[in-house]
Amino acid sequence: MTRYKLLIEYDGSPFVGWQKQENGLSIQESIERSVLELFQEQVTVFGAGRTDTGVHAMGQVCHFDILQKELDTNTVLNALNHHLRSYPISILKVDKVDEEFHARFNAKQRKYLYRIINRHSPLTVEKGRAWHVYKNLDVNQMIKCIPFIEGKIDFTTFRSAHCQAESPVKTMENVNINRTEEDIFFGFVARSFLHHQVRSLVGSLKLVGDGTWTVENFKFAVESKDRSKCGALAPPEGLYLMEVKY
Amino acid sequence: MTRYKLLIEYDGSPFVGWQKQENGLSIQESIERSVLELFQEQVTVFGAGRTDTGVHAMGQVCHFDILQKELDTNTVLNALNHHLRSYPISILKVDKVDEEFHARFNAKQRKYLYRIINRHSPLTVEKGRAWHVYKNLDVNQMIKCIPFIEGKIDFTTFRSAHCQAESPVKTMENVNINRTEEDIFFGFVARSFLHHQVRSLVGSLKLVGDGTWTVENFKFAVESKDRSKCGALAPPEGLYLMEVKY
Repeated sequence: MTRYKLLIEYDGSPFVGWQKQENGLSIQESIERSVLELFQEQVTVFGAGRTDTGVHAMGQVCHFDILQKELDTNTVLNALNHHLRSYPISILKVDKVDEEFHARFNAKQRKYLYRIINRHSPLTVEKGRAWHVYKNLDVNQMIKCIPFIEGKIDFTTFRSAHCQAESPVKTMENVNINRTEEDIFFGFVARSFLHHQVRSLVGSLKLVGDGTWTVENFKFAVESKDRSKCGALAPPEGLYLMEVKY
Repeated sequence: MTRYKLLIEYDGSPFVGWQKQENGLSIQESIERSVLELFQEQVTVFGAGRTDTGVHAMGQVCHFDILQKELDTNTVLNALNHHLRSYPISILKVDKVDEEFHARFNAKQRKYLYRIINRHSPLTVEKGRAWHVYKNLDVNQMIKCIPFIEGKIDFTTFRSAHCQAESPVKTMENVNINRTEEDIFFGFVARSFLHHQVRSLVGSLKLVGDGTWTVENFKFAVESKDRSKCGALAPPEGLYLMEVKY
């Protein structure tokens, strides 16, 4: 048996998300099909993070096991990219790893980026690649919210009703918010995240940025541990899974 | 009569280019139609640069004249963006200018950016937004070519057969080439450019970067003033008209 680890980039727009589903094509299924074409084996591909419909990845990681044919990593990289050529999925790197490695359970750190373009006029080149927010956002007010969401926190407010995690308590290692002209970047680093956590956080921070909420309102939303206190979910097109560390 | 000046951004992918043509939809025609819908006047929209099929703009400028209805600039901005909503064209700014202003003839400086993504694996999120070059490019070799194309130069080698400029001699004010990991950015600044000049230059610089040409070969291509010595044209999707100064 050979276990292969893939580093993957994708444009999430045309997919139902990472995970295989009945209602459309997922990234997982696309990769499983390309593995089947190459190795003639039906495998399950395990991903580090189950990105939602429309969410992008610059550094998703997955693994799968092949029982029969053994191929060198360069061949696997080029062949999978060839089979995936009609989809916006790109294999950046292939490694052979030992049986202890698990893309999801061994991950020590995940980094997500959320991108807002804050301007009056519609998007063109960046359409589908960022959340377009019309109202002017005050980044300094949003930055004041960071202390309430860094550290070991009960993130119940920012957790989807469908979240399967055992506990709503997660340790957020780092949050940063930067503005460069009309671009606002939110960086989030943690060992693991709850379902919809980043989009829930950004949706709520946006309300602080546009003046709908005060910083106190945000603090209250966190401390209430109540999903109904969360701001509207930020759309998927601004979210990128950037990196997974092991 | 009121003369309006527009600052425009567009994703060039679905268009036949800036200029109105029989064989498909141009950016110029799309804007003229939106002006007609708003003002009920058939105008000609004059652009600062006639970008080719598939070329993008972050800062194209154009002007047009309205004889009857006078509207404030905010209304024009919002109404044109509304009429353009099904196209990747965005009006960033509207000004009223005097009759002396001409978007094309008064331009003092134009800035173009050309973007290469230099890596082995296919593009996903950046597809259609950069030229994907597989072979490793040596940026230091390309930078050595800059002195041959800065200043007042006969750019015959880098000029399309269809170029309508009176003279092939242009003054290139500045060229710069930067690499950040897999991204290579080429910046070009001049009062005006010949048809296909930037894409011809980047196509030839790429040959130096990948080792097909030496720096001496590049120098020879410039000095030969012979179109047949030019490298293959770089594709349009990496080119951006960034700014026009008056």
